[in-house]
Amino acid sequence: MTTLQDCRAMDAQDPLRPLRAHFSLPDGVIYLDGNSLGVAPKAAAARVAEVVEQEWTQGLIRSWNDAGWVELPQRLGDQLAPLIGAGPGEVVCTDTTSINLYKVLSAALNLAREDSPTRQRIVSADAPGADAPARSKGLSERSNVPTDLYIAEGLCRERGLELVLLEPEDITAALQDDVAVLMLTHVNYRTGAMHDMAAITAAAHARGIVCVWDLAHSAGAVPVDLHAAGADFAVGCGYKYLNGGPGAPAFVWVHPRHADRTDLPFMQPLSGWFGHAAPFAFTPDYQPAAGIRRFLCGTQPILSLSALQCGLDVFDAAQQLGGMAALRAKSLALTDLFIALVQERCAGHGLGLATPRAHAARGSQVCLTKDEGAYAIVQALIARGVIGDFRKGDGGRHQDILRFGFTPLYLGFEEVWHAVEHLRQVLESAEWQRPEFNQINAVT
Amino acid sequence: MTTLQDCRAMDAQDPLRPLRAHFSLPDGVIYLDGNSLGVAPKAAAARVAEVVEQEWTQGLIRSWNDAGWVELPQRLGDQLAPLIGAGPGEVVCTDTTSINLYKVLSAALNLAREDSPTRQRIVSADAPGADAPARSKGLSERSNVPTDLYIAEGLCRERGLELVLLEPEDITAALQDDVAVLMLTHVNYRTGAMHDMAAITAAAHARGIVCVWDLAHSAGAVPVDLHAAGADFAVGCGYKYLNGGPGAPAFVWVHPRHADRTDLPFMQPLSGWFGHAAPFAFTPDYQPAAGIRRFLCGTQPILSLSALQCGLDVFDAAQQLGGMAALRAKSLALTDLFIALVQERCAGHGLGLATPRAHAARGSQVCLTKDEGAYAIVQALIARGVIGDFRKGDGGRHQDILRFGFTPLYLGFEEVWHAVEHLRQVLESAEWQRPEFNQINAVT
Repeated sequence: MTTLQDCRAMDAQDPLRPLRAHFSLPDGVIYLDGNSLGVAPKAAAARVAEVVEQEWTQGLIRSWNDAGWVELPQRLGDQLAPLIGAGPGEVVCTDTTSINLYKVLSAALNLAREDSPTRQRIVSADAPGADAPARSKGLSERSNVPTDLYIAEGLCRERGLELVLLEPEDITAALQDDVAVLMLTHVNYRTGAMHDMAAITAAAHARGIVCVWDLAHSAGAVPVDLHAAGADFAVGCGYKYLNGGPGAPAFVWVHPRHADRTDLPFMQPLSGWFGHAAPFAFTPDYQPAAGIRRFLCGTQPILSLSALQCGLDVFDAAQQLGGMAALRAKSLALTDLFIALVQERCAGHGLGLATPRAHAARGSQVCLTKDEGAYAIVQALIARGVIGDFRKGDGGRHQDILRFGFTPLYLGFEEVWHAVEHLRQVLESAEWQRPEFNQINAVT
Repeated sequence: MTTLQDCRAMDAQDPLRPLRAHFSLPDGVIYLDGNSLGVAPKAAAARVAEVVEQEWTQGLIRSWNDAGWVELPQRLGDQLAPLIGAGPGEVVCTDTTSINLYKVLSAALNLAREDSPTRQRIVSADAPGADAPARSKGLSERSNVPTDLYIAEGLCRERGLELVLLEPEDITAALQDDVAVLMLTHVNYRTGAMHDMAAITAAAHARGIVCVWDLAHSAGAVPVDLHAAGADFAVGCGYKYLNGGPGAPAFVWVHPRHADRTDLPFMQPLSGWFGHAAPFAFTPDYQPAAGIRRFLCGTQPILSLSALQCGLDVFDAAQQLGGMAALRAKSLALTDLFIALVQERCAGHGLGLATPRAHAARGSQVCLTKDEGAYAIVQALIARGVIGDFRKGDGGRHQDILRFGFTPLYLGFEEVWHAVEHLRQVLESAEWQRPEFNQINAVT
């Protein structure tokens, strides 16, 4: 049996423990919802104040050049790139995950409808050629994050494609010549299950299918190597594991083999001025910038972008302590501990585990199921200061979920102990059955 | 001849003078670039600090409900609505002007390709019916703000339409049955010339053409009445005359006759979760929210949105002092004064006036032309603390421009005097010919 002392010993031996000092953690809170909104880096308040009081108030329009606002999406993209196996000049931080997904999914569909010679660039030598049937399907996972499915639904409808949603175990078999684009979220938002990006991308490319990955629950949480996987497009979120602040701008990556193409000026449809080759020339016709900058569109929210930089800065500090490999090791230790403690201390209350146990098959969250009361249990925990969240099931395969995210940058092992102890007390006291925990509010 | 004393007297009699105290104006600056980036409201620093230090740091995920983040785009939209003649529940503040334009232009094109019974809703009784020719053109102005043209170019290309760009005087005659959508910026970003929104919209509707208006240089600067004009769609900018901060989220308005339609679920293509009827139900299929909320897409940048609120709050204060009518009267007095002073004191230097003199035909900026040295003169003025900007010509009809924006919320008449006096000195001393003012940098 694991003890509180064991957990304290793990904290004492944790090489990443100093990173916790980079964050402002509120008193009385054990925060297991960093996969929904990350904790504020301590530097954020001063940095945002500087942007408002100096760069905006004093610098005014001059700050677009003098404070480097113009280049901020690219600069943050370069800072983020190592976390996802991207190169410099390949990532920009901009807009929202949904909008970035629209850009890259549009681009992927544009590529997928090309003749085979071009598609050969991304497929293996034995891929089907010009005699392949029409690619009439977009493919995704049924429990993919809904906003991704909404974007895909609209685009497929506009382009005359069928959007096919499958359970994860059925995806590989469905990678056939009638599929144009495969769009998956690397780590499932509901279950924490993680796809094998390299294997799936290879299987898709062997069939000439373009691959789009959403890294919303991966970037900053698990090591990602987009180049090693040979991925085509990726997007992700700034306000979860990157701790960029509420509604922080998202990011977008495009493999240079696509981003550098000059024969498709409207490769992505949101052709705004910040993606123009010469935005300040104010010419009436659109000429895309080279590389990833063409995936920018309009003027970016500088205050929010500046806060995101503080989140990324912590990863620079983490780099000195082992970087993503060390973070991944700690993340797995945290989630292993949580699973073990729930098993040891909360047995007999009908909790199930929705997250795969195998390390290679999960991200940095643990999801529990319970036939009855999942919502109320989460509310009772929040009232005790243990913040996770609830995701409703569909009445079928996808059950109600108690979702707990583990951000290795700031969470400690002793906190995991206390979180499970609170869960045990809530379950044993039937505290969760109180009426106030059973009123459904808007949730996020 | 106008004197400095005259200008001081105008300040003394200005009923809007108290509004200046709502802004943090940097020392030593006469700011005539509020049409590019507005000045910081004094309240912004404290409000943004509150969002970072309390709502994010302490409240964390709970602030989506407790601090009202979820409703912020609608709440700010309601606050902005009276400035543009929109009703409550008809506007949201979100994303960027370019992206919002993409949404509404897509929606306008979707409406324009409908059969005539539906199009009859927006056209007059004598409009052409089902026998009208195919609508194969999108129409705009050649010197419309380039990012609007880039977005339109991409969309027209994708939909198989021709984008036709005309000079303003040729637009009315081109409103024929082959036009699907007319997209104009109400006040021209280069010249400050203002279209007659009501007349053009009526002429377009008489031919069954859907009208999209960009209010980037109108909202907060000139009175706008979208309902009186019968407009279909409008977008606009948060960081110019609304003083929302660098890259502040933009806004979008859709007439309820379109926004409330339930038969076009994907009326706009950026179908993200915040535009869903029940975003937190996490259902896999998209069902648009009723009304304007369907024009939301992804999670919004809360820090930047919160600063925008401070800009809008000043208009609430202005409402007590006469609102947009009083602001318009002051704006015209400021620009009239500037034109008169330039004429009286800067004659003989080859300056021309690109902005119409007629009040009804201009917004809140004055643009001067000069055959040689326009860029350097702007730089020399900036070095003296008089901040305007430069817009390059096309070598043809559109000349190089010295652009001066006049924000009636904070500008005084004495400042106009001093600005022109600086201009006079720069011209008479040939100061602008110094090498340091003739090095071209990135400009905004």
